[in-house]
Amino acid sequence: MEISAFQKARYGYVPKLPASLSGPVDRIAVEFGSRTEALSDHAEIAKIFKHTYGKPIVTFTEGKNENLGRRLKVGVILSGGQAPGGHNVIAGLFDGMRKGCPESELYGFLGGPAGLIENRAKLLSAEIIDGFRNTGGFDIIGSGRTKIETPEQFAASLKTATLLALDAIVIIGGDDSNTNAALLAEYFLENGSGIQVIGCPKTIDGDLKNRYIETSFGFDTACKTYGELIGNLARDAASARKQWHFVRLMGRAASHIALECALQTRPNVCLISEEIEARGWSLAEVVDLICDSIVARAENGENFGIILIPEGVVEFIQDVKRLIGELNEAIAGNEETVSGLSSPAEQLRWFSQKISAAAFATLSAMPPGIAGEFLADRDPHGNVQVSKIRTEILLIGMVEARLRKLRQEGRYRGKFTAQSHFLGYEGRCAFPSNFDADYCYALGHAAFVLIASGLTGYLSSIRRLTSPAEEWTAGGVPLTMMMNLERRQGTFKPVIKKALVDLAGKPFAVFAAARKTWSVETCYRFPGAIQYYGPPELCDETSVTMRLEAEGGS
Amino acid sequence: MEISAFQKARYGYVPKLPASLSGPVDRIAVEFGSRTEALSDHAEIAKIFKHTYGKPIVTFTEGKNENLGRRLKVGVILSGGQAPGGHNVIAGLFDGMRKGCPESELYGFLGGPAGLIENRAKLLSAEIIDGFRNTGGFDIIGSGRTKIETPEQFAASLKTATLLALDAIVIIGGDDSNTNAALLAEYFLENGSGIQVIGCPKTIDGDLKNRYIETSFGFDTACKTYGELIGNLARDAASARKQWHFVRLMGRAASHIALECALQTRPNVCLISEEIEARGWSLAEVVDLICDSIVARAENGENFGIILIPEGVVEFIQDVKRLIGELNEAIAGNEETVSGLSSPAEQLRWFSQKISAAAFATLSAMPPGIAGEFLADRDPHGNVQVSKIRTEILLIGMVEARLRKLRQEGRYRGKFTAQSHFLGYEGRCAFPSNFDADYCYALGHAAFVLIASGLTGYLSSIRRLTSPAEEWTAGGVPLTMMMNLERRQGTFKPVIKKALVDLAGKPFAVFAAARKTWSVETCYRFPGAIQYYGPPELCDETSVTMRLEAEGGS
Repeated sequence: MEISAFQKARYGYVPKLPASLSGPVDRIAVEFGSRTEALSDHAEIAKIFKHTYGKPIVTFTEGKNENLGRRLKVGVILSGGQAPGGHNVIAGLFDGMRKGCPESELYGFLGGPAGLIENRAKLLSAEIIDGFRNTGGFDIIGSGRTKIETPEQFAASLKTATLLALDAIVIIGGDDSNTNAALLAEYFLENGSGIQVIGCPKTIDGDLKNRYIETSFGFDTACKTYGELIGNLARDAASARKQWHFVRLMGRAASHIALECALQTRPNVCLISEEIEARGWSLAEVVDLICDSIVARAENGENFGIILIPEGVVEFIQDVKRLIGELNEAIAGNEETVSGLSSPAEQLRWFSQKISAAAFATLSAMPPGIAGEFLADRDPHGNVQVSKIRTEILLIGMVEARLRKLRQEGRYRGKFTAQSHFLGYEGRCAFPSNFDADYCYALGHAAFVLIASGLTGYLSSIRRLTSPAEEWTAGGVPLTMMMNLERRQGTFKPVIKKALVDLAGKPFAVFAAARKTWSVETCYRFPGAIQYYGPPELCDETSVTMRLEAEGGS
Repeated sequence: MEISAFQKARYGYVPKLPASLSGPVDRIAVEFGSRTEALSDHAEIAKIFKHTYGKPIVTFTEGKNENLGRRLKVGVILSGGQAPGGHNVIAGLFDGMRKGCPESELYGFLGGPAGLIENRAKLLSAEIIDGFRNTGGFDIIGSGRTKIETPEQFAASLKTATLLALDAIVIIGGDDSNTNAALLAEYFLENGSGIQVIGCPKTIDGDLKNRYIETSFGFDTACKTYGELIGNLARDAASARKQWHFVRLMGRAASHIALECALQTRPNVCLISEEIEARGWSLAEVVDLICDSIVARAENGENFGIILIPEGVVEFIQDVKRLIGELNEAIAGNEETVSGLSSPAEQLRWFSQKISAAAFATLSAMPPGIAGEFLADRDPHGNVQVSKIRTEILLIGMVEARLRKLRQEGRYRGKFTAQSHFLGYEGRCAFPSNFDADYCYALGHAAFVLIASGLTGYLSSIRRLTSPAEEWTAGGVPLTMMMNLERRQGTFKPVIKKALVDLAGKPFAVFAAARKTWSVETCYRFPGAIQYYGPPELCDETSVTMRLEAEGGS
């Protein structure tokens, strides 16, 4: 099959490695820090992770080491949604293992964690790896969303790993998958198995980060892909001068993607879920925020603009959150009755008697088509499917209604035409930017060193990421160190804490300081397509979020 | 305002020029060919274009010329939808004029042809031009869709051009705008004015082309932007292995964009409107074509895929075309009654009595939400708004229904989940690819030479575009040469003939030969983001369509 010129060129790209990892294995020394603690709930988490709690942070340095040359058998899993760079984590792991011992073997579990549970594995040859270097997607072995949760699933995982005589398993995933990795590491030790488990921080959402994980991989490429497109839309808006583009962006819980895209492109409005929740804003207040920009720009003769909307925002808007909660409660136990309601009108009638007057008022204020999405689209547990709600259409409809009112009151004299967009899938499988290609390769390489050093329950960690790659710090962070207890389905469970947008942090502060101007004036910035070749200022620039976090220290 | 690193870098890009245009103006010779004819209807078209009909083709060569050094005053108009490269046409025109005589002046008419009619012009300084070199969008002077049609509009145009003492007007637009340019050139001569009119071939749709216009500008960049995204979606589909992506692509009349994207990315199905019309396919047959791929791939355990859909396809599907025609007829004269129908059910009832049973059957087979779009969304003339019909949602709904039936009959055992996309606005204002940046700059430069040579009613023409830019042939083609008579609103009018996908041409042939394999197997090709720096095979590759047309000669 003839591949694209670009893919061919990318095969030839050599990812940059930190100096501490780039030498032969006998020149990679491992330094141990002092004992660590969980984020909170120390005693409870220590009890759950009897064998893996409190381990020290590990840092690799140039030095002497005679322990990394073992022959290894490792299995690797891609877990959850695609993120650019996953293939390079696997390539970095593979190359590291082969550097340690050319006879080492890497198995890929097919289709995510289910591949481990069901023993579907594929031996990854150098030829296979070479076909995926510096490419996007997770298609080398596929991914999946199965969680290892039940005692049977844990037992089956141990059985597979034992059958394959693995030394270690590497789980490439987000916060949930790495919580899973920690539990699996503990389970193996508890059951007398020496099989190690190492995690790697993946997610385009950017919400797996902390002091030791400066960013999850994929965030950089995904945001640059969305930034390119938003910049193009902004240029289109400023050229045609007649359309408001409402752009919903992937990112369910955290608004990092929306914030990064806003810093890159300077839209007129960007909603930040975390702020909306903190301020307790209602849907009407969010609509007003958007209308303020539309009205002010219309006064300047600019009947066009760009609005960025994080996918999950409805769950952070106070009255909509309440509505969703009440709808879910009303449905619980009445699934069959609800399924039997044949028309939108019937649905509305039924729900009107089951939810509070306030929640019903929120629902009634929505455009009928979208109200239907709240009522009709439910997941297998009967819950409203937030990710299926077309928030951009909801907001357009409500903005139109509000502008009609403002016009009647003589407060708006513009023309409003809107165009909706959803940017998500387009960014998950882009060719990784040079940053993500380098970062992922280093993460995979570091995972190898952690394994060869006999460690388990660690997350591969590369730090100082805003410096040139040669100066990056590589090592590992104990997974238990990022945990706290959270209530999930009624019981407290140890989980890796999700990083939401920090309203006291520098990226948000920079945005907040500028947005009043952006809201009225036309300040668009056009990032262009991701460049992989050419001057470093075009090819190696990291995300604005990470740069500001490094500067601001929060 | 701090601009992006990429925009800054693009300012430094120097567009390549054909050798014949790159020297000083006294080294650009003008060669005239023999008298030309319109495509058909010679006598009628010659009668309409008394002063401009039948002019010779013009070619520029390296030679001697002492006539290009005049001081010029020129006005330029951006007409219609945005296309990447428009700013470079203006920059090329500006630089050419200044090369001829440093005192020459270029005015930009604001907001499209309306700027000429209403005398809204802006003198373009070197500083303004420098801020837009090699950038996307039409925001330097804005664009618009007003046509110069009425006697008053023609008179106003002449008045503005005379007031500004212009030597010439350059109209950058598609087939309609260039038809307008031809009429304006004729009008000026008919009214004793020597003001010249020159056109430049713009449209991302790619349907303004013929023997002398190998491609319209913007097509290359737009298709590469869509190709990047479709490639990313294909990789996502192949990684997650659980979704069919239905991607509607801009391109109302012709399917060049869809075909080019198919050649770039090898989707499982790509609909070509021209073929569907030629074969007289019904909506059910189109749905069957898609289901054939879904069923065959499900047999291979591949419940995922990519479907490309040209925006305007519904108008080419026999029974849907008939439905649209009957709906428009039913509405004509009954606009108020129709507007008064308050519910979808009422609309359906009313139309059921006004259209044929066959048309009503087509409508009834559609998912209710989409049927509503046919009934409710009408333009100011009461016509169904084809561009607002979400064809991808229509097809998903009908495919679901068909698969349910096939499953009942035991002919389908897969799982079907679909995701819809519309790619359009994202590509219209991308930074022009190196090809479009070079091509547009040369078009603008050639427009200057045509003006300085005293010519009018010509389209700027750059040929041999698949060769290196230095070897391109520059010149001009008489606009009347691309015309035929077509019936528009009841009367025959001279128009530039739209280039539809040639079902006997090489691009379609290559697609047709491969698509059976693509439909069943996973053959995706991943073009990646447009590269502007780096090796020529990444940065200077032209569209597959143009390369195949050059090879195939059709």
